[in-house]
Amino acid sequence: MAVYLDYNATAPIRPEAREAAMCALDIGGNPSSIHANGRLARAAVEQARGEVAGLVGASPEGLTFTSGGTEANALAITSAIAAGAKKPIVLMTEHDSTLNTATASVLWTEAWPVSADGVADLDWLRDRLKTWRKEDGAPFAAMSLANHETGVIQPVAQAAAILHEAGGWLHVDAVQAAGKIAVDFRALGADTLSLSGHKLGAPQGVGALIAAPRAKLQRRQFGGGQERGLRAGTENLSGVAGFGAAASAALRDLPFVEDQSQWRDAAAERLQSESAFVAGEAALRLPGTLCVVTDGWDSQLQVMTLDLSGVMVSAGSACSSGKVTASHVLAAMQMAGMNATARFSGQMLTAMKSAGLTGGFGLRASGGWATVEDDWVQFADAWIGAHARHAQRRKVA
Amino acid sequence: MAVYLDYNATAPIRPEAREAAMCALDIGGNPSSIHANGRLARAAVEQARGEVAGLVGASPEGLTFTSGGTEANALAITSAIAAGAKKPIVLMTEHDSTLNTATASVLWTEAWPVSADGVADLDWLRDRLKTWRKEDGAPFAAMSLANHETGVIQPVAQAAAILHEAGGWLHVDAVQAAGKIAVDFRALGADTLSLSGHKLGAPQGVGALIAAPRAKLQRRQFGGGQERGLRAGTENLSGVAGFGAAASAALRDLPFVEDQSQWRDAAAERLQSESAFVAGEAALRLPGTLCVVTDGWDSQLQVMTLDLSGVMVSAGSACSSGKVTASHVLAAMQMAGMNATARFSGQMLTAMKSAGLTGGFGLRASGGWATVEDDWVQFADAWIGAHARHAQRRKVA
Repeated sequence: MAVYLDYNATAPIRPEAREAAMCALDIGGNPSSIHANGRLARAAVEQARGEVAGLVGASPEGLTFTSGGTEANALAITSAIAAGAKKPIVLMTEHDSTLNTATASVLWTEAWPVSADGVADLDWLRDRLKTWRKEDGAPFAAMSLANHETGVIQPVAQAAAILHEAGGWLHVDAVQAAGKIAVDFRALGADTLSLSGHKLGAPQGVGALIAAPRAKLQRRQFGGGQERGLRAGTENLSGVAGFGAAASAALRDLPFVEDQSQWRDAAAERLQSESAFVAGEAALRLPGTLCVVTDGWDSQLQVMTLDLSGVMVSAGSACSSGKVTASHVLAAMQMAGMNATARFSGQMLTAMKSAGLTGGFGLRASGGWATVEDDWVQFADAWIGAHARHAQRRKVA
Repeated sequence: MAVYLDYNATAPIRPEAREAAMCALDIGGNPSSIHANGRLARAAVEQARGEVAGLVGASPEGLTFTSGGTEANALAITSAIAAGAKKPIVLMTEHDSTLNTATASVLWTEAWPVSADGVADLDWLRDRLKTWRKEDGAPFAAMSLANHETGVIQPVAQAAAILHEAGGWLHVDAVQAAGKIAVDFRALGADTLSLSGHKLGAPQGVGALIAAPRAKLQRRQFGGGQERGLRAGTENLSGVAGFGAAASAALRDLPFVEDQSQWRDAAAERLQSESAFVAGEAALRLPGTLCVVTDGWDSQLQVMTLDLSGVMVSAGSACSSGKVTASHVLAAMQMAGMNATARFSGQMLTAMKSAGLTGGFGLRASGGWATVEDDWVQFADAWIGAHARHAQRRKVA
C-alpha cells in the first residue's frame, strides 16, 4: 500500500469535492447565461463562494475565484502595485509565485528576513517602515501564513498591525495553511488572502483571493464581466464547486487534521536519532509538515529511493521539481542574523551561494485530511532503511 | 424535454471528457512531482497535450495549457506586444477577451473593419499594411476563425499571407471553430491560435494557446516552471485531461457536427418568413450557429420567453449577459462600407451609437455535438409562437 505524504504539493481529492465537481460537470450551463442551465451554474458558483469564504470566516462578497493560488497571489501583488506600492516587501521564504511576480513587476523588491527557525523578523519590519520614504509608495508586504516547505507559521496578525500603523497593505498567502489549521481572515487582519483548492482536497486549477473592502483590486485578465469585473473568463465551474465542497469538509475535519502533529513528531524523532535536522523545529508549524535536512545525502535521491518503497514525499516545492536547485527557504533561514537586506533579483540564490550559503536540500513530508498514523510510521521506516543503505554505500565507496 | 442551443456559451460535457476528468481527479498527484503519482499526473497532461494539438493538426510542443480561451488570447496578445507590436490590429467583431486585452495593453488599437456580412475586409488590411510605419512596431493582427455571435468564418489563411508578407504576426481565436469545423493550424498559417475546452465538450476552466516556433511567447503568470516556464501554477489536471478526451471525440465526430447546417437553415427559413433577419447569412458560417435580428423585439426578452418554454439560447455572448448592451459585432457589420477606422477605446459602442449605429440585439441559437434535428424544430416552434404572442401584445397596446 502506497504512502502519500506530499499534501503540500497536492492533496488527494476529498469525496465531497469529487461529488460536487462531477455534479457541476453535468449542469451544462455557463454561469453568465440567463437561462435555466445558466442559473443552475450561477447558483453552484455562489454556493461555493459562500463555502470557501466560510472556511476562513470572510464574507463571500470579497472573494474572487481564480485559476489557482499562483493567480491569486499575482492578483494581490499587482493590485497593490497598481494602488501605489513601488517597493513590495516580500518575506524571504515565500513561494516562487509571490517572489517571482514581485520581482517581475517592479525594479526593487525588499527582502524581509526570517529567523534561523524561519519566523518573520518583526523588528526588521518595524524598523524598515520607520524609515519608509514617501517616494517608495504605499508600504505593501507579502507573507505566508504557513511556509510551503517547512510548515512554519508566521506571526501574521502582528505583522498586519505593524503594516497598518504605517498605512500599508498586508497580503497573506494562506494556500498551505487553509484546511490544515484554523484561519480567520478578520482576526489575521490581512488586506488580501490567497487560497488554493487542490491543497485542501479540491480539484487542481482553482483558487481564490479574498480582499477586505479597503483593498482595491485591479483586474489582470480582460474580457467578460465575470467575478464582478475582476477576473474575465468563464468560471471553472466543476473546480469551483469542488472547492466549495472541499472547504466545507475541511472546516468540519479541522480538529482531526490539527491532531496530526504528534504522528509527525514521532516520525521526526526517529529521523533525528539518525542525525537528521528538522528545519524550523522550534517554531510553530503546520501539524502535518516535516522538513528534514541531512548532510551529504541528496534529497532528490531520497525522494526517488523512498518512491521505490512506495512512499511519496518531495524535495522542496513541487513547482521546482525536476530542476535541481537548492531551497531558497532554507537559504533564507541560514542567513538569519546576517545583515542581509538582499534584493530579490531572481539571482538571490546565486548571491547566497557566493556568500557561502548553500541553502541545502530539504526532504519534505506533508500529510493532510486522509493521512493516518501508519503513513508516518511507514515513512520513518522507509527513510531509516534507505539512510542505512546510503551510509553503508558511502562507507564502501 | 429542454432544448439546449447555447453551445457557443458552453457545450454540455462529452461523456469521454467526463470520464477522463473523473479519472484525473482520482490520480492524486501534482504533475510537477517526481514520485509515482506525480508521474501519472504528468502522463495525463502530456497525453492531453497530444490530443488537443491533434485536433488542430499542431505539434504538442507548441501547446501551452491555460485557464481558458480568455487567458490564451491574452497570452498571445501580450506576447506580441512584448515582441514589439505597438498598434495591434483587431477585427472589429472580436470577442471581448481580445478587444479588451488589446485596448487595456496599448494606447492605440487599430479597428479592422468587416463587410455587412461580417467578413474581414482583406483589402483594408492590405492597404493598411502598405502604409505601416516602422515606429508602430511589428504588425500584429488578431481575428477569430469563427465569430462567437454570428458564426461567420473568416478568411484566415489569406489574412495570414498578407500579414506575413509584411513581416507580421497573426493571432487566430479558434475558440468557437474548433470541434465544430475542421481546423488545420499549419494550413491556416496562424502564428498563434487559441482554444477553449468548454466550447467543445470539455470542462470549463481550461484552454490552450498553440504557437508556431517563430512566435515568441512571453509568460504572464510567474512562479513555478510549469508549461516550459510559460505559465506558472499547478495545471488544472482534471480539466486538461477532459480537454484531451473532448478534443479526440470532437475530431472523431466532426463530420456529424458539420452536417448540422441544414437543420439550422430549416429553422432559419421559418424565422425569416416571420420577418427575422439572419446576420451574416451570405457568409460562410459555423454549421450550428444562427444569429437572428428582429426589429422592435428585445432579444433579452426573447431569451427569457424561450427559456420559459424550455428552450435555452442567448442574446449576444454569455460573457456580457446580465448587462443589457447592444452587440458590437452587429454594430461593426452595420458600419461596413463606412470610412470608419475607429479606434477601440472601450467606448466604441458609444461612438457608434452617436453616429446612429445602434448595433441592435441579436438572438443567438447555437448547437453542437449532442444537438439533434428536433432541437432546431422545437426552437423554431417556440420562437414563432412567442413572436406571434409578442406581435399580438403590440397590436393591443
